[in-house]
Amino acid sequence: MSISIAPDGREFAFPTPEQNREEIKKLQKITEEQRKLGRKIVVVQGMGFVGSVMATVVADAEDKNGNPYYFVHGHDLVSRRSFWKIPVINNGESPIQAEDPEISKIFPRVVKEKKTLRATWNEFAYKLADVIVVDIQLDAIKPDFGRASTGYCNLSAFREGMRTIGRSISPECLVLIETTVPPGTCEKVVKPIIEKEFKKRGIDTTKNPPLIAHSYERVMPGRNYVSSIRNFCRTFSGIDKKSEELAREFLSIVLDIQNHPLYCLENTNASELAKVLENSYRATNIALMLEWAKMAEKIGVNLFEVIKSIKVRKGTHDNMLKPSLGVGGYCLTKDPVLANWSAEALFDLDEKLPMAIHSVNINDTMALHTVELIEEVFPNLTDKRVAILGVSYLGDVADTRHSPSKLLWEELMEKDAVISVHDPLVKIWPEVGNMRVKKDIKTVLSDTEIVIFAVGHKSYLDLEPEEVVPLCGKPPLIIDCSNFISDKKIIKYLKLGCEVKGVGKGHIERLKVKGKR
Amino acid sequence: MSISIAPDGREFAFPTPEQNREEIKKLQKITEEQRKLGRKIVVVQGMGFVGSVMATVVADAEDKNGNPYYFVHGHDLVSRRSFWKIPVINNGESPIQAEDPEISKIFPRVVKEKKTLRATWNEFAYKLADVIVVDIQLDAIKPDFGRASTGYCNLSAFREGMRTIGRSISPECLVLIETTVPPGTCEKVVKPIIEKEFKKRGIDTTKNPPLIAHSYERVMPGRNYVSSIRNFCRTFSGIDKKSEELAREFLSIVLDIQNHPLYCLENTNASELAKVLENSYRATNIALMLEWAKMAEKIGVNLFEVIKSIKVRKGTHDNMLKPSLGVGGYCLTKDPVLANWSAEALFDLDEKLPMAIHSVNINDTMALHTVELIEEVFPNLTDKRVAILGVSYLGDVADTRHSPSKLLWEELMEKDAVISVHDPLVKIWPEVGNMRVKKDIKTVLSDTEIVIFAVGHKSYLDLEPEEVVPLCGKPPLIIDCSNFISDKKIIKYLKLGCEVKGVGKGHIERLKVKGKR
Repeated sequence: MSISIAPDGREFAFPTPEQNREEIKKLQKITEEQRKLGRKIVVVQGMGFVGSVMATVVADAEDKNGNPYYFVHGHDLVSRRSFWKIPVINNGESPIQAEDPEISKIFPRVVKEKKTLRATWNEFAYKLADVIVVDIQLDAIKPDFGRASTGYCNLSAFREGMRTIGRSISPECLVLIETTVPPGTCEKVVKPIIEKEFKKRGIDTTKNPPLIAHSYERVMPGRNYVSSIRNFCRTFSGIDKKSEELAREFLSIVLDIQNHPLYCLENTNASELAKVLENSYRATNIALMLEWAKMAEKIGVNLFEVIKSIKVRKGTHDNMLKPSLGVGGYCLTKDPVLANWSAEALFDLDEKLPMAIHSVNINDTMALHTVELIEEVFPNLTDKRVAILGVSYLGDVADTRHSPSKLLWEELMEKDAVISVHDPLVKIWPEVGNMRVKKDIKTVLSDTEIVIFAVGHKSYLDLEPEEVVPLCGKPPLIIDCSNFISDKKIIKYLKLGCEVKGVGKGHIERLKVKGKR
Repeated sequence: MSISIAPDGREFAFPTPEQNREEIKKLQKITEEQRKLGRKIVVVQGMGFVGSVMATVVADAEDKNGNPYYFVHGHDLVSRRSFWKIPVINNGESPIQAEDPEISKIFPRVVKEKKTLRATWNEFAYKLADVIVVDIQLDAIKPDFGRASTGYCNLSAFREGMRTIGRSISPECLVLIETTVPPGTCEKVVKPIIEKEFKKRGIDTTKNPPLIAHSYERVMPGRNYVSSIRNFCRTFSGIDKKSEELAREFLSIVLDIQNHPLYCLENTNASELAKVLENSYRATNIALMLEWAKMAEKIGVNLFEVIKSIKVRKGTHDNMLKPSLGVGGYCLTKDPVLANWSAEALFDLDEKLPMAIHSVNINDTMALHTVELIEEVFPNLTDKRVAILGVSYLGDVADTRHSPSKLLWEELMEKDAVISVHDPLVKIWPEVGNMRVKKDIKTVLSDTEIVIFAVGHKSYLDLEPEEVVPLCGKPPLIIDCSNFISDKKIIKYLKLGCEVKGVGKGHIERLKVKGKR
């Protein structure tokens, strides 16, 4: 059991006590060498989706003479889930799959060429740090489907991470929380834990209060992933003036603040709240669109055209979002829940955030509307052959976390449909029992009665009705979840004898008249 | 009883039958003359807030040689409420109060100089028209406070307006609906009524279907009122191709489409939906902010700073709105209700628009939160002397329609407070029994224990704490509803012994520490 298996199948044995002792010596030696080169030491806690890339961005920062500012120890745990990342990173490889070509360049560059990033499992690294960047994953748990008000946040792994830090760091070390946390976490969780550990170590916390700051990333999956960390505006805050200044100094070196200025908020509650509000704003605006999509469908209106017409009002209406299969990804599905949970759990407030939570409920259940559209044509789905095209949560990314395709798949399974699943980017669907996702569109469409364009991957744009319909055998029902099929193509599908429906696309009824001409 | 009284007190007797006969002759004569000058005839139906100004904009349109394109008959009814507008307009005066200096120029220009606008009460005008622009006021009625789901739209005056049109117009006349209407109105209300009247007149509606189009204004009250009609992007649609083309031609002449292109939607349902969605989007985004404001207040956060920090994300987050005393004005308070009502009343849909309606409920009751803030300091408001500064619904406009100050006033009255009301722009508060609003801030603040900065009029920016507190006698409770008082001023108020609270301003608690130093 003491092995960790990488996604590509390579196995890595957990370190032995001997290796642990050697690792400490290595950490000491490397750190000494790096300090002699004038570099400060950064530990990034958590080599996940954000942390590993943040570690490379920090390790990549250099002055105008090309001298790196920092040496980075990337830390993760000795666990089956995580340990493999350490040898993989130290081999100059990325532990994450991403569409950004920069990912496969930056890891070898900082690990092999610049030698400014090294991953480790050993907590000893924390003792050596000037700055710690916390990128521990922190999930919201939603036990009841469609009832996000009962969602909560299990902070135990996060608390354990803070204890590790408190046990080890120098009192002069800055702890920069980058994880999206429930508002109040720095003040009510991070600070008391580190203070407690400091006191155990005999550190006078009135003279040496822990230095804690918060700054949230605005990472976007996709082809500009690395750039979305480095070249994007940042908000930050410190728990006190000294922490704020240290955070400002660190972020100014690591990020492109000339083009993307820092925004300092006056306390950690404020910047923690900013992050979850930022995403709750998006979640609410997507949710709003679903009810208007349903109405548009019924009154013969193409909601996407309506939205386009409104979005000409720049600065006041151009953030308007669109209905779709549903909302997935890591942030919009959980951040309103973190905020809502915090109101009661960390601040003991009576009033919580009903609108934000209601939006999550709408978004989490949105895929059921696509099933309703199907059932308008096939009231009984038993043994109906359905193809789901796209299982990631967004077009042209491979990320399946909280993808609405999962609910679509589950609901169709529940109704005894026979489902085949296609995605050009996703090989394995971890959230659905590590299902193997098919790559060959011909196999997937073969003998299919219902084709769901679930996610707008670019490669689906090439699918022509003249190709799809013969592959299916007889004309299938086509469902467009993301305004992905042009009116021209819809008319072609109709002419070929297909039924076509789309989320928010009430105008298809009128196209039928054209289609039949 | 047969008189109509203008807001300034002038009285106008209703027209006699003799005057009616003369008016018809006048209308014929003027129209003949104008046709000889090569001008088309436009009737604007409804000389209200939008219609009267739209009439001037149409009348002001001219070719590059300075020749007007249109002559406009502005029509309104012989009623106590409306008739006075006709002689007032024909005197070259504006029937509406507006902060826009252009208003007092454009009326004399088109009425007296260009002689391209004349108002009339006589329906005969419709017989002469090439284009009719419908600007009848159409309200949503919300019978239950805080329960907008029971809101409805009384279309009877609107239907009567359509019958008037159908009885009179040439079959070649374009009827352009500019009123914000429930989606479906053109197809399900306007068209059948005009068709019915056409049939009564023996017009073959298969050969001559009524020409109907829809194009909504995006009027903003304030100093650029006229410009917000003429120099702003427009969406439009026609009930058929011919109507669409006629609408495009008319709007292209009247509006500055070079800089503000027209946007054509494919049917009237779509553009009707666009208007109410546009405003529902805003209403929802204000409502969302209230729950976050309440949380921010409790956790020591200045929500306005947080919002500012998020709005740096241009194009994705910069439409974010702000909490305030509440939401007023003519559009955001009713448009979601029009849409929700239409779903059932015009389309017989089961599902309506719960999120948009919930937002209206939050917005309509938002002012109660300001009373809660007051009660945190004064649990008993009986005989407390309160000053409400600002009764319009928006800063620096005189418009009091659906102003949230009304609910504030009512709630404070209910709690037996002694209220004085100030506004630099509003003389009379029509919605509160034509209350005379005071202009002298000194009188209003005299002996006041609670000062509510309800609306952000610029002139209130000049009020210094050193001036306000002595006027009140002893240090009052200061309430800031619209992030109108700077931190510097708040600290001054605190130092002068005041308590200060503000919607969304949780950081005031921390300023108190600074204030007491």
